[in-house]
Amino acid sequence: MATAVTGEPKIKYGPQVKTEGVPNLFEPQTVTPFVPPPPGIDNLGITSTDTFKVPGVGEFTVDFTGYVRVVRSEPTSDDWTSSEVYTNLLEMHMEGESPELGPIQVRLNSDCLSTGMIRTPFADEQATQPAKACRMAVGAIFELPRLGLELYNKEPVLLTIDDVCSIPPAGNPGKGQIYQMLPLYDVANPDAEPVAYLTSLSFQMGTYLSRAETQAAH
Amino acid sequence: MATAVTGEPKIKYGPQVKTEGVPNLFEPQTVTPFVPPPPGIDNLGITSTDTFKVPGVGEFTVDFTGYVRVVRSEPTSDDWTSSEVYTNLLEMHMEGESPELGPIQVRLNSDCLSTGMIRTPFADEQATQPAKACRMAVGAIFELPRLGLELYNKEPVLLTIDDVCSIPPAGNPGKGQIYQMLPLYDVANPDAEPVAYLTSLSFQMGTYLSRAETQAAH
Repeated sequence: MATAVTGEPKIKYGPQVKTEGVPNLFEPQTVTPFVPPPPGIDNLGITSTDTFKVPGVGEFTVDFTGYVRVVRSEPTSDDWTSSEVYTNLLEMHMEGESPELGPIQVRLNSDCLSTGMIRTPFADEQATQPAKACRMAVGAIFELPRLGLELYNKEPVLLTIDDVCSIPPAGNPGKGQIYQMLPLYDVANPDAEPVAYLTSLSFQMGTYLSRAETQAAH
Repeated sequence: MATAVTGEPKIKYGPQVKTEGVPNLFEPQTVTPFVPPPPGIDNLGITSTDTFKVPGVGEFTVDFTGYVRVVRSEPTSDDWTSSEVYTNLLEMHMEGESPELGPIQVRLNSDCLSTGMIRTPFADEQATQPAKACRMAVGAIFELPRLGLELYNKEPVLLTIDDVCSIPPAGNPGKGQIYQMLPLYDVANPDAEPVAYLTSLSFQMGTYLSRAETQAAH
């Protein structure tokens, strides 16, 4: 069910980060707070609670568990405060189950390059050792096999993590920045009106996984 | 400077709305509150106040004036509360001037279909004659001729209007839903890191314009 992004995506939400020669990082890893790390591909656990509204049917809150594989760029500087780090989601795999909707699997939409960045908030650039902020724009596919339905977003889901004191922000909580609703479309009928909406999303980054743990999730 | 969207855009943020046979509406128009109107192309004034952050240079707040041309779909129902209306931005032209940055012109990015919808908020669907909410995802180009620079967004700018009691929501205030910052990229160097950020945006929809007023703005 996990899908890696291959080839050239049609839509890029930001800069593409180099992956060649970048180490694939599993547990255990030592992460030093307030130090911009060398490039890496982080294999991290993730949990998420998403609420879906299906007009005329109902609203459904679903807990998801899974992992992400994220490539990080060379920091633009060795200095924590002024450094920027760019990220791409290479893989995402989350599973949840709803009594009404059945199992739901979430993966990346390979039409999109899901991109992000970590930088110091503008208001904190004069602070000593400020926390940084992480933002990532994501194109996802929600697969609902019991309903024979695959849904996707056409506007990126913006995932944000504040108070980032180490990179990667393993263990941090984050939020999907959704104003009221984010339309979801039917993969089988992409030009039609939205069939559902994501109305809220909160998540928690986990820690580094073992290679076996990411493989077991496939 | 105004640019109409022609051909097939590479990125569509939502459904495409039919324009053939849809009347092009200028002032004067009679808009009836709480009644879903027949399809139309609305030529409306707009003003906007945008704040741009250019790292290492400064933060600049600029007032813009101009117009938009928006096509509205046939409402999905005659009933105000349950009706949905889909919209596409066909044209946008705004001009502003900053003492530091010089003149700035804003137009649509023709690579994107900028799309929106008007519907009743989920929480208000049982209310009698509820206000509706309008949301639109926009791909724009900001032209800064003094700096020889054109900037664009890769994540859509989400413009929202609440308390919509008539369609179109002429005269309503609205907001760009920006969490901290929205990256802007250099048209001449699209694969590079962002060069500026939009950090806040508030706008006000104007009323119907005359044909002469929209032509004068070109």
